Amino acid sequence: MLCITTRGHRCAALLALCAMPLLATAQLPVARKPPTLDAVLAASKPSDWEPLDPENTLYMQLASGRVVILLAPQFAPRYVANIKRLVRERYFDGLAIERVQDDFVTQWGDADHTKPLGSAERSLPAEFIFSSADIPFTPLPDPDTYAPEVGFSGSFPIARDPRIGRAWLVHCYGMVGAGRDDDVESGNGSELYAVIGQAPRQLDRNIALVGRVVKGMELLASLPRGSGPLGFYTKSERRMPIESVRVAADVSPDQRLPLEVMRTDTRTFAEVVESQRNRRDAWYKVPAGRVSVCNVPIPVRSQ
Amino acid sequence: MLCITTRGHRCAALLALCAMPLLATAQLPVARKPPTLDAVLAASKPSDWEPLDPENTLYMQLASGRVVILLAPQFAPRYVANIKRLVRERYFDGLAIERVQDDFVTQWGDADHTKPLGSAERSLPAEFIFSSADIPFTPLPDPDTYAPEVGFSGSFPIARDPRIGRAWLVHCYGMVGAGRDDDVESGNGSELYAVIGQAPRQLDRNIALVGRVVKGMELLASLPRGSGPLGFYTKSERRMPIESVRVAADVSPDQRLPLEVMRTDTRTFAEVVESQRNRRDAWYKVPAGRVSVCNVPIPVRSQ
Repeated sequence: MLCITTRGHRCAALLALCAMPLLATAQLPVARKPPTLDAVLAASKPSDWEPLDPENTLYMQLASGRVVILLAPQFAPRYVANIKRLVRERYFDGLAIERVQDDFVTQWGDADHTKPLGSAERSLPAEFIFSSADIPFTPLPDPDTYAPEVGFSGSFPIARDPRIGRAWLVHCYGMVGAGRDDDVESGNGSELYAVIGQAPRQLDRNIALVGRVVKGMELLASLPRGSGPLGFYTKSERRMPIESVRVAADVSPDQRLPLEVMRTDTRTFAEVVESQRNRRDAWYKVPAGRVSVCNVPIPVRSQ
Repeated sequence: MLCITTRGHRCAALLALCAMPLLATAQLPVARKPPTLDAVLAASKPSDWEPLDPENTLYMQLASGRVVILLAPQFAPRYVANIKRLVRERYFDGLAIERVQDDFVTQWGDADHTKPLGSAERSLPAEFIFSSADIPFTPLPDPDTYAPEVGFSGSFPIARDPRIGRAWLVHCYGMVGAGRDDDVESGNGSELYAVIGQAPRQLDRNIALVGRVVKGMELLASLPRGSGPLGFYTKSERRMPIESVRVAADVSPDQRLPLEVMRTDTRTFAEVVESQRNRRDAWYKVPAGRVSVCNVPIPVRSQ
């Protein structure tokens, strides 16, 4: 669909005029009246799914249950390697959730900053943004407030700037990142956080995202908020202890969870996206006609 | 700033080419290097703030503390009047939180659907969208995925479509709405919900938003998630009881909370917005240069 413009028009007017028709008629390889999310999932094929890679899956055991994190070594290789080293040297075992800031993040690590890092790196290069050249990318057809292009790569939400050939992971609900101090190379993966509120997109390109929670997110999001500055727990508050963190590959196969994530480069995932752009169940009267990258669920299921 | 385009260009390319320069140079009435949010708040004047209207403020008392809700009679007058009638007839007292769906909503009301509604209306017109003609509007300069224009009106996030002269409240974190069944006139305010996750913007224009939580949001967001369908608690799960809900005007003045909200039609609020578009503290290395309507805090303070 062509949107004819007059040379010299102001961009602002142009955006307003063009955005709606463009959105309404963006072509997706799906039927005109898309099915609901449940229907899409029910009709999915085995090839639409792939098992979590045990070598890049973490199990964090809390008293309340197990949190499963899928790591993103393709986007933050040095961070992921260091986190796995910390995990394998039992760094996180016995530590605790130390910060829960409402509508922002739940963070865990060593609140006292006394536990030795073992053989792990103390400092890592800033893996906040990377070349988009060899990154698979399934674009979302709708505009984004923060980035020129947004979409999905592997099992992750991602943004791109084609003018500079760069891409970065996006801070959606459930994404996991590695805390740092003011120095961009001060992070090392020993302090991790998960997004528990409105996508804090201002963090994009400022900090390393290293994965996302694919199971147990509610255990991190429902914790009492900390009363200290930035939601850190004070000494008097009860911190949820971390019993253990393990790489799934190090757990005996019968103890692993048989989780699969939907591939985002499939026609079925395009139908998932469309089911969210235009809700078709009886309750919705005005389909939005578009969707934010952080409002698209990247489905996870148990085999 | 003019963005010159070539006649016949596709809109998609145009959006990608134009969006960045437009955003980078959007004019706001603030200094080139804006102060941080803390600095803006510290420099605010008394006239930047206004007290909550006691007649349109609700105190919901839970065992864990008090939730304060500012109602929006200017946008949903029939709903707000009905909710106040229910409150004044003690409808909510002794009911409970009945649903907590992770990354979506916390909902309260009568899970058993047996409590009489008293003199309140059983059905209300669909106050989902309204004329924008007489609505004050402070626009946000950045694009939105879901609406042609977004901004603020009174103490609320709002969207507009100038082509049809209509506006609607936006489902941001902490916004409070009134549940309904499939029939658009089936809502009456006896079932209320607050948004506890990523802004579910697909609900915009489909349901009545009636206000927002201005204090105690963390009490609603940190509750255990329900294990039933849609996050409803099952019979075996402990529901957080609602001890009472009161209109602030009905509470003796010494029992009221002296809360104020920032006016959104002020230069100070424009500086709040700019402080969020471009973070200036030492931690941020790449200011986003823009902000989503749901990432702008509308400040609340105690007098």
